[in-house]
Amino acid sequence: MTYVISIDDVRSAAQKLAGVAVRTPLIENIKLNEIAGGRVFVKCENLQHMGAFKFRGAYNRMSRLTEEEKSRGVLAFSSGNHAQGIARAAQLLDIHATIVMPKDAPPLKLAATRGCGAEVVLYDRYTEDREKVALAVAADSGAVVVPPYDDPLVMAGQGTSALEVVEDLATMGVTPDQTLINCGGGGLAAGSFTVYYDAFPHIQGYVVEPEEFDDVKRSLEVGSIQSVDFGARSICDALLTPSAGARTFPILQGNGVKGLSVTDDQARAAVSFAAKTLKMVGEPGGVVSLAAVLEGKVDTQDKITVCIISGGNIDPDMLADCMARF
Amino acid sequence: MTYVISIDDVRSAAQKLAGVAVRTPLIENIKLNEIAGGRVFVKCENLQHMGAFKFRGAYNRMSRLTEEEKSRGVLAFSSGNHAQGIARAAQLLDIHATIVMPKDAPPLKLAATRGCGAEVVLYDRYTEDREKVALAVAADSGAVVVPPYDDPLVMAGQGTSALEVVEDLATMGVTPDQTLINCGGGGLAAGSFTVYYDAFPHIQGYVVEPEEFDDVKRSLEVGSIQSVDFGARSICDALLTPSAGARTFPILQGNGVKGLSVTDDQARAAVSFAAKTLKMVGEPGGVVSLAAVLEGKVDTQDKITVCIISGGNIDPDMLADCMARF
Repeated sequence: MTYVISIDDVRSAAQKLAGVAVRTPLIENIKLNEIAGGRVFVKCENLQHMGAFKFRGAYNRMSRLTEEEKSRGVLAFSSGNHAQGIARAAQLLDIHATIVMPKDAPPLKLAATRGCGAEVVLYDRYTEDREKVALAVAADSGAVVVPPYDDPLVMAGQGTSALEVVEDLATMGVTPDQTLINCGGGGLAAGSFTVYYDAFPHIQGYVVEPEEFDDVKRSLEVGSIQSVDFGARSICDALLTPSAGARTFPILQGNGVKGLSVTDDQARAAVSFAAKTLKMVGEPGGVVSLAAVLEGKVDTQDKITVCIISGGNIDPDMLADCMARF
Repeated sequence: MTYVISIDDVRSAAQKLAGVAVRTPLIENIKLNEIAGGRVFVKCENLQHMGAFKFRGAYNRMSRLTEEEKSRGVLAFSSGNHAQGIARAAQLLDIHATIVMPKDAPPLKLAATRGCGAEVVLYDRYTEDREKVALAVAADSGAVVVPPYDDPLVMAGQGTSALEVVEDLATMGVTPDQTLINCGGGGLAAGSFTVYYDAFPHIQGYVVEPEEFDDVKRSLEVGSIQSVDFGARSICDALLTPSAGARTFPILQGNGVKGLSVTDDQARAAVSFAAKTLKMVGEPGGVVSLAAVLEGKVDTQDKITVCIISGGNIDPDMLADCMARF
């Protein structure tokens, strides 16, 4: 089966990102292993630039722009990690970035995005249509839109995280049985599974979603792209996409990936575990695969499991709340 | 000059610890570099077993016990990271450990120590003499006392952390100009500087202490071991030793190490920076060298600086307070 990206696309992205992205650590924790009854490796993408894996895809995409495109600048809409990844990549590549963000986005994320020199255009998410605001900006400037996940270069960039995991496991002589990846639109998952199934043909892949945003899980079960219910809610703000992408989903489906989901409280407990035991700051949407391991959503007994902390941009009050309650 | 440990002792410790201690990551953060105006590497010993570097020295010391000594067990007094390091090493080496801890030690630390199977003997720090309680236990069982820092095997074990840093820097082709190390009794500092000055003869080493516990700084200035003032206070509970050790101090002095100190608020700000920007959970005493970098206590402009997060065992309320205030 042929997909929109191959392992070679991820390797090419890794060349672009060498010396630019953080080569994030893969950690193993003796207490986590005890809970799992096996070995668990955690890829720490919360240590990536701007605190999330998103920089990888953004930089890979933007480094391929022609000089003419670069001169027009880039445009993205996001209230979160994608915005910051774009802003940082634009700063490093000396490209003007416009980010359309909701007026009520967390002040810290607005500040972080502006702090990289990006131009932030605010809109009212209750009275204005984000797409229209963005299109008006694009029409004005001719800026190139960088999508958050359903783009081959973005997917390939995110997959470089898994390439590093494969290298680190090879150094240790370890072959994983299963890998769990946090999933919103599926960009990180599609890029990563491209790598994992190439390196380890017998691995079992899982995407992990918030319970009310388990559209990819259901999509994999029924064999076509499903959407979240209207009114779905979750504290995992990094994973609140309505459905998988037309480009990301076939990669998950074709590789036989399965779906898992966790509740908000399970995500909160994983945030607390990460901070108290792993000494890692993760955001709720960044720790759902860790939550799935902690909750025994997959059999980890005598197995080698890889999961990921994909982001750590959590509000201090939320972190304190998670640590106080779990 | 000859000291009680040499680089060979640290290398020997590294052999004992291979595959047992966590090989902790050395991270670099683009925002920290911007603040410093140079490159800053942070060694993450908060990711060591039990959340602090202490496991290294404890395990190295205890793995050298004779079978007869092992059968008698080990004894330590500590309310904090040393207790947990000993408890974990004892568990792995199948040695009975007795830890004398104050009754009012944080419940989490008591639980963590007991959770490794150590026997905890409580004493009242206001009415009982810790040494007498410990000696009574030792007299009973013949247990071997494992000191927290002033022991060659403990110092050599702590130094293995720096060996890893040197290896990682060599891989990157980087030669550091200066290295800052958190200092209580000086075990980590003595072991680490043994390694750093061997690898990089032109490096400048600094110990970093809490302001009211700057006895090592003053000792280095006057050339003899000084003590803290009665009544000194700090939130950096991992660094509250009254004076450097008779074995650790000559290593610091002989290598020309200098002293720095930071206030409690500077430590709090570094805890907050570590969590918000580095996505790392550090305890106040674990981040004083990072605090010194952030506060410009040394010139980092166009230089390559190494510091350390030596521990991450922070109370959730303290973490929340630091993040709210800084």
